Amino acid sequence: MALKTPEQYIDSIRAIKPRVFIAGKRIEDVTEHPNTRNIINTNAKTYELTLDPKYQELLTATSHLSGEKISRWCHVPGSIDDLKKRRAMNILMAQKIGTCHGRCGGLEMIHVLASVTYAMDQKLGTEYNKRFNNFLRYMQENDLCCNGPQTDAKGDRMKRPLEQEDPDAYLRVVEKRSDGIIVRGAKLHQEGNFSSHYHIVGPPMTGIGKGEEDYALSFVVPVGAEGMTYICQDSPMEAERREAEDIHTLGNPIYGSSVSSMTIFDNVFVPWENVFMCGEIEFTREYLAKASRVHNMVCRGSCKVGFMDLIIGAAQTMAEYNGISRASHVVDKITEMIRIRETTNACATAAALMGKEDPPGSGVYFPDFMSGIMAALNTQYGLPQAALLAADIAGGAVVTMPSELELKNPETSQYVKKYLKGVASVPTEDRMRMLKFLQHWVAGPQAGRMWHGGGPLQIHRITIYRGALADLEEKKKLAKKLAGIKEQS
Amino acid sequence: MALKTPEQYIDSIRAIKPRVFIAGKRIEDVTEHPNTRNIINTNAKTYELTLDPKYQELLTATSHLSGEKISRWCHVPGSIDDLKKRRAMNILMAQKIGTCHGRCGGLEMIHVLASVTYAMDQKLGTEYNKRFNNFLRYMQENDLCCNGPQTDAKGDRMKRPLEQEDPDAYLRVVEKRSDGIIVRGAKLHQEGNFSSHYHIVGPPMTGIGKGEEDYALSFVVPVGAEGMTYICQDSPMEAERREAEDIHTLGNPIYGSSVSSMTIFDNVFVPWENVFMCGEIEFTREYLAKASRVHNMVCRGSCKVGFMDLIIGAAQTMAEYNGISRASHVVDKITEMIRIRETTNACATAAALMGKEDPPGSGVYFPDFMSGIMAALNTQYGLPQAALLAADIAGGAVVTMPSELELKNPETSQYVKKYLKGVASVPTEDRMRMLKFLQHWVAGPQAGRMWHGGGPLQIHRITIYRGALADLEEKKKLAKKLAGIKEQS
Amino acid sequence: MALKTPEQYIDSIRAIKPRVFIAGKRIEDVTEHPNTRNIINTNAKTYELTLDPKYQELLTATSHLSGEKISRWCHVPGSIDDLKKRRAMNILMAQKIGTCHGRCGGLEMIHVLASVTYAMDQKLGTEYNKRFNNFLRYMQENDLCCNGPQTDAKGDRMKRPLEQEDPDAYLRVVEKRSDGIIVRGAKLHQEGNFSSHYHIVGPPMTGIGKGEEDYALSFVVPVGAEGMTYICQDSPMEAERREAEDIHTLGNPIYGSSVSSMTIFDNVFVPWENVFMCGEIEFTREYLAKASRVHNMVCRGSCKVGFMDLIIGAAQTMAEYNGISRASHVVDKITEMIRIRETTNACATAAALMGKEDPPGSGVYFPDFMSGIMAALNTQYGLPQAALLAADIAGGAVVTMPSELELKNPETSQYVKKYLKGVASVPTEDRMRMLKFLQHWVAGPQAGRMWHGGGPLQIHRITIYRGALADLEEKKKLAKKLAGIKEQS
Amino acid sequence: MALKTPEQYIDSIRAIKPRVFIAGKRIEDVTEHPNTRNIINTNAKTYELTLDPKYQELLTATSHLSGEKISRWCHVPGSIDDLKKRRAMNILMAQKIGTCHGRCGGLEMIHVLASVTYAMDQKLGTEYNKRFNNFLRYMQENDLCCNGPQTDAKGDRMKRPLEQEDPDAYLRVVEKRSDGIIVRGAKLHQEGNFSSHYHIVGPPMTGIGKGEEDYALSFVVPVGAEGMTYICQDSPMEAERREAEDIHTLGNPIYGSSVSSMTIFDNVFVPWENVFMCGEIEFTREYLAKASRVHNMVCRGSCKVGFMDLIIGAAQTMAEYNGISRASHVVDKITEMIRIRETTNACATAAALMGKEDPPGSGVYFPDFMSGIMAALNTQYGLPQAALLAADIAGGAVVTMPSELELKNPETSQYVKKYLKGVASVPTEDRMRMLKFLQHWVAGPQAGRMWHGGGPLQIHRITIYRGALADLEEKKKLAKKLAGIKEQS
Repeated sequence: MALKTPEQYIDSIRAIKPRVFIAGKRIEDVTEHPNTRNIINTNAKTYELTLDPKYQELLTATSHLSGEKISRWCHVPGSIDDLKKRRAMNILMAQKIGTCHGRCGGLEMIHVLASVTYAMDQKLGTEYNKRFNNFLRYMQENDLCCNGPQTDAKGDRMKRPLEQEDPDAYLRVVEKRSDGIIVRGAKLHQEGNFSSHYHIVGPPMTGIGKGEEDYALSFVVPVGAEGMTYICQDSPMEAERREAEDIHTLGNPIYGSSVSSMTIFDNVFVPWENVFMCGEIEFTREYLAKASRVHNMVCRGSCKVGFMDLIIGAAQTMAEYNGISRASHVVDKITEMIRIRETTNACATAAALMGKEDPPGSGVYFPDFMSGIMAALNTQYGLPQAALLAADIAGGAVVTMPSELELKNPETSQYVKKYLKGVASVPTEDRMRMLKFLQHWVAGPQAGRMWHGGGPLQIHRITIYRGALADLEEKKKLAKKLAGIKEQS
Repeated sequence: MALKTPEQYIDSIRAIKPRVFIAGKRIEDVTEHPNTRNIINTNAKTYELTLDPKYQELLTATSHLSGEKISRWCHVPGSIDDLKKRRAMNILMAQKIGTCHGRCGGLEMIHVLASVTYAMDQKLGTEYNKRFNNFLRYMQENDLCCNGPQTDAKGDRMKRPLEQEDPDAYLRVVEKRSDGIIVRGAKLHQEGNFSSHYHIVGPPMTGIGKGEEDYALSFVVPVGAEGMTYICQDSPMEAERREAEDIHTLGNPIYGSSVSSMTIFDNVFVPWENVFMCGEIEFTREYLAKASRVHNMVCRGSCKVGFMDLIIGAAQTMAEYNGISRASHVVDKITEMIRIRETTNACATAAALMGKEDPPGSGVYFPDFMSGIMAALNTQYGLPQAALLAADIAGGAVVTMPSELELKNPETSQYVKKYLKGVASVPTEDRMRMLKFLQHWVAGPQAGRMWHGGGPLQIHRITIYRGALADLEEKKKLAKKLAGIKEQS
Repeated sequence: MALKTPEQYIDSIRAIKPRVFIAGKRIEDVTEHPNTRNIINTNAKTYELTLDPKYQELLTATSHLSGEKISRWCHVPGSIDDLKKRRAMNILMAQKIGTCHGRCGGLEMIHVLASVTYAMDQKLGTEYNKRFNNFLRYMQENDLCCNGPQTDAKGDRMKRPLEQEDPDAYLRVVEKRSDGIIVRGAKLHQEGNFSSHYHIVGPPMTGIGKGEEDYALSFVVPVGAEGMTYICQDSPMEAERREAEDIHTLGNPIYGSSVSSMTIFDNVFVPWENVFMCGEIEFTREYLAKASRVHNMVCRGSCKVGFMDLIIGAAQTMAEYNGISRASHVVDKITEMIRIRETTNACATAAALMGKEDPPGSGVYFPDFMSGIMAALNTQYGLPQAALLAADIAGGAVVTMPSELELKNPETSQYVKKYLKGVASVPTEDRMRMLKFLQHWVAGPQAGRMWHGGGPLQIHRITIYRGALADLEEKKKLAKKLAGIKEQS
Repeated sequence: MALKTPEQYIDSIRAIKPRVFIAGKRIEDVTEHPNTRNIINTNAKTYELTLDPKYQELLTATSHLSGEKISRWCHVPGSIDDLKKRRAMNILMAQKIGTCHGRCGGLEMIHVLASVTYAMDQKLGTEYNKRFNNFLRYMQENDLCCNGPQTDAKGDRMKRPLEQEDPDAYLRVVEKRSDGIIVRGAKLHQEGNFSSHYHIVGPPMTGIGKGEEDYALSFVVPVGAEGMTYICQDSPMEAERREAEDIHTLGNPIYGSSVSSMTIFDNVFVPWENVFMCGEIEFTREYLAKASRVHNMVCRGSCKVGFMDLIIGAAQTMAEYNGISRASHVVDKITEMIRIRETTNACATAAALMGKEDPPGSGVYFPDFMSGIMAALNTQYGLPQAALLAADIAGGAVVTMPSELELKNPETSQYVKKYLKGVASVPTEDRMRMLKFLQHWVAGPQAGRMWHGGGPLQIHRITIYRGALADLEEKKKLAKKLAGIKEQS
């Protein structure tokens, strides 16, 4: 085996030529187009860092299948130490790229499927785990970049899959053949699906019940397979990036804000050896619960911690550039931002350190359930507050600043240099770049992304209550005992 | 006199040909360029509505100078009823255009200067009020659109104007001549300065003290005067609008998000008859206090109320499009959004209804000080929360949606129509447009604008405390009396 | 007529000898018992202030029935100026006594009944308004103190009155006779019911429907009438007050924390001339809506504003006693407390100033509905926060302080004086009294009272949403128009 | 050695006869007086549970000094497992007694001193650790109950010890003799100082600097030593308890709300072998930092978690008694309470699991610094919110309920039973007891205690900021790198 170089990764993606659209037009080469090049850069960065001796211990691991040294981006956590490193690598990436990368989802999927396929085989006598391990070994050997598209189209949110007018609102099997299955549907919101080698797909992020077997589905399929189409998001930030002649006029020049796509499966064929679940409805809730445990720890509990480092660092820099870093209200705002960051970090750390093998014998470790939800909720409530505090410190120019191009315009550069200056010692250009960087976080789609990634808040709240019902009985007993009430009432 | 038609307004602006730049390039015709046309539309809308018989009572008034019927956009409030209508017209405009228009600042300025110049003349025997009234009468007779640029460049925020390395960090008089003055400096963040007929300029939004007389300054100057340059903001939303072939793919197609500009005064000459303050440092605090009273009531206390109507309406629409409008957590979120809106509205209503003539004899009415601050603070804390709640109801597609152009692309339209559908009865196109409209509010610069317009929160908090110091003594006495403590300690 | 003196009031109450219980024992004389004397003091204070020339304009009014000068505590608001004074008198009382008084509820009831009985007579041809005016004239002529018990026992909160196992869970008519009615049930939570001359009773604080006519009921009955029993609340504060030899060791020595009672109506007879509603279910919702409008403005929107003055004054005093009043975090906390106070005040002011005659022709003015709810909600969310901030400033001694009696104990006084001292210039006794005063607010039943008075939060939130439904449609239209969506969807 | 029985503990305390005062009077026997008996009960419970086979593993440990089995209440944590158990025992106690016990502070002190005396000896060549270990061995062998009074009187909070008018505002050495030292001062706010065998005293909870050596002080002294006086807090709850004939009419009948005392050291002699620090100012900050790390984890991060279990259990019980447990807003409130509880729990768990030996070689383990602060802050912000939510669910009777004694009064019991009933299936007595139990938490001093225990919030915020300064530089670098800014500015 060999760890891929960034160049090898890019070449391998260029060769795929998936069918990708943005703003109504086909993208010919995703490794070159300004709206997709940045997500290619994020994935390439994972390969670059993995080869960096400084990060060897963190970013490589030993395969439990082959015993070989592999990239940790292809590794299933098998210990508490692995869970800790799983967090650390996401924090590191977030700090280094300031956006989502396209390898994250696939890593979550192999984590969950390693366990769920094991459990299925144990209980049902199936061979899903064997199939899965074959794929995983292949992925590890070739150091593949895989994504994990999660969210179905969902149509009417109050209706179950089969109640929808269009049964394809959730991805499903439309035909079973002797050599494999045909699937149809779409997955939304996932970053960089077209910039990977494989899609690893699971059942919907909602429980599936009797009669809905066609939706209880997990499989892998190569990016760009026949029937696959990718339609990219197109927000103002994408337009700005398309127009930019020099990316350094943009907020996060190299990596930008990851482009999501609608990933369309239009009668796509999957051979049986790539199918890891097909109709086992009783395992969809387990899948869902485990995916949620992993995602809460690594996404809202880790990436977002790295993002908050960037927002705090930018806010503190702006405070200094504006000359206000010692004002008591600024110190208090920075403190509050740190408090939010550290609370998430502590909860997610607890999730990792309380990790357990699940199911026993599987060799797969999962973080603690409740601590992970607490990390997720703290981020969802707190991160937008941190962004608002940063915006408050930066001032109105975070919205109203002109383009950095003015600095090269002889008619305007003197004015911009003169009047966008903060403290005398800092060049205006630096102040403008930091303002532009913060604009990216507080006045653009990234703001919305931070809030949404990982699904709606209400799901977590319902999960907490349901998960706590048995515990509520225990708490009632404790209170009744102290209050002097006999048990029965 | 005659009220201008929208067309007359547009023609008059086209004739000015101010020196405007965006993204490093000169704009030739601000009435046509995609990044300025939208702000022209907002101002034109004020002219259109004023001529609409439905809004006659609200949008016209009788001049206290000429006794003629004039546009209320040129009218100085002279009664509590005027203050109420001042709020109503801003709420109406906000609901109709969903962004800032360029006529708002000028209206605030004439409100403040009508009072402050009166007070100066009373106390100092100057003729500022007469000069001001001459200008005001001219403005009313010609139904002019005026702006009121407020915020200086400020440099190092902890230093006073004369301590700055560059004394031009605050707009100032650099030369006094027999026929007038020469001014230099810049005003930032103001929407549509180049889309009006005149700039009405006041002293900086910070108190000015002894030795800083050159900064105690108020005057009017025509847009496009010699020495004036305008450098526009350039956020992703401007790039998106530049690129758009059909503005209906944009979030607020006709009006967009108002473009602010740095407004540069590079040795601009102002004849004495257009100067309304020049060195009277003792009146800068009064100016500041009155500008703040007006702004809190009309901007954060009124425009933002209209904006919240749009956000609530959009969120409720999205809830219905997604099929979740009866879910208890959605009902609770909508309720909370209404609570935020109604609290601001109640506070700003109190500010208007408690209005007083100030100074007595001036004929100019100002809203209540404390109630207005409460309206402003409730908006600043609450509006971002309302936006987050709206984003939560809308779902992740508010960020990740593709362009509406895909609906016309034969290769992708079927997929987008199929998979971005919510409830079966609503066309996908409608759902996409409402998502795009909300994107404008919750994932773009508009989010930042809502937070900042009107200056930093901390100023308000300091103002509250200072304003309450005498009152604190009274409160201490009440508490001591009830606690049984003798007065002295 | 004559305004009563405090002494006349006290004598008149002493003569009644109602059947009152506390802590399992009968109270013989409510004007003397330590747990009821304090509420007698609060009512007496209303009589004292009314006679005070300083408050003549505020606390007296002209009867719309007799044209005589009467106490405003017996006056039905008939103008916006009356509504403003209605607020001002409650704020004044709150500042002067620091707790609820027993005259407040009765005043709310005559406000509502003056309007509702008028509306009933107009629509139904009944004579309720005539009966009510007879009582009101009698009340005004004799300057009576009346209370208005509101809250029914309610049993199972999810069941309607007739679904309850015990139909008396809501007060009801159990027999109609030719000369009057017999009523049975209880009203809870009302302060000082036994310290007044009359109970003025209305229908339950929940809508009453078809078949529930026996609960649609309003009447007056003298305190201490046959069948009336009063069972007082008994919290730790009552025990402390019973034990105290010198009331100055208590937190609010003279007025304490008003004692509520369960007021039991055990087959009480009410002659027809004292009945103001009996079976008119269609008017119970109107009654409820108007009671809520009045209560939100005068209780949460006014009394609580006066309470917050005391809490802020006490917190600022403690900050000075502790030497920390200039610390930036203390300034920020005081500022936040003022912000909370002023937001409620602004909303409630708007409610008063937007008041309207309702129904037209009745001569009775009601405050604005939505502004009043905003005042109420701001208080409910904000007042507990203000109390917490005050506790934080005061420090742990607000809970752990020893009794002031130690200052007279030769074995301990030197230690207490020495070690409970704050800044050197303030006597320890003063610091202890202010701590004890704050303890009353932040670590005792008063804290809970502040939160609950006026019913649960959820009612207000439901009311907001229901009240806003029509408005939501309007907001949707505005958003759709700007988003470019055709009306139908 | 032998673990003490509860009876042995009580007998041993009775024998001490310390000089204790409450409400101006001397308490003769603290094991019998109603205001101190309850705290004796809390300590006795620690002895009872330790002997309970069910809790053997949790509540006993092996002494690192003697190798003997000892009570964990005398054990210094020497591993991460010990830290986990340290949390578990505090949660257990909180659930079982619903208030503070008097053994907690002493346990914190031995934890800190075991490490700090070791560090002093290593660096300074002193023998403090040996002395400390002698005492610790004695404490373990005799299963002693020790307290740890922390908070000095502090006088003017903005002045340092030597700037105070009274230098005794902080506990200090007033004389050094050959056989020992004489100390003078007071410690405030500590629960049950008189109900233990020994005081373990440390330096003040603020850093001590050059010239302030007399305050850098740690020692043990027996309870009731010559010169010791204890003056108890006296809140309404103490008065209520003194009056009660049957403690079951009280909110937390057996354990109540722990009574704090001012603990006075009036020229108390301490022999050198009991002195563990005397003038080593450079170690007071280390002492302080370690005490804070322990306290945040065990007090706000553990006890309060147990308290929240009781509040949640009581709220859920009241919801069921009132019939509203399925209302969506109630479910949401319970969920929010759980969220608060679980966030603290996750943070404090992280603190334990990230524990480290400090200093290396000492054998003493401390929890993580930042995670512990996050646990503390989450509790301080969240616990009062949880109490308010519980009050809201319970309804107004949580304040206005009459005494349970009415149930035995033939004149009132029928009324109380009838009208304080909730759902038909629950006896009124049970509902009253649960209301009384909640009153204890939400409308009494316990509310204040929960907020304050562990010092003011602001300290934590300052600590966060200072602790994060170096980290801020790192964050700035990350942001600058991504923004494209060169390092120097």
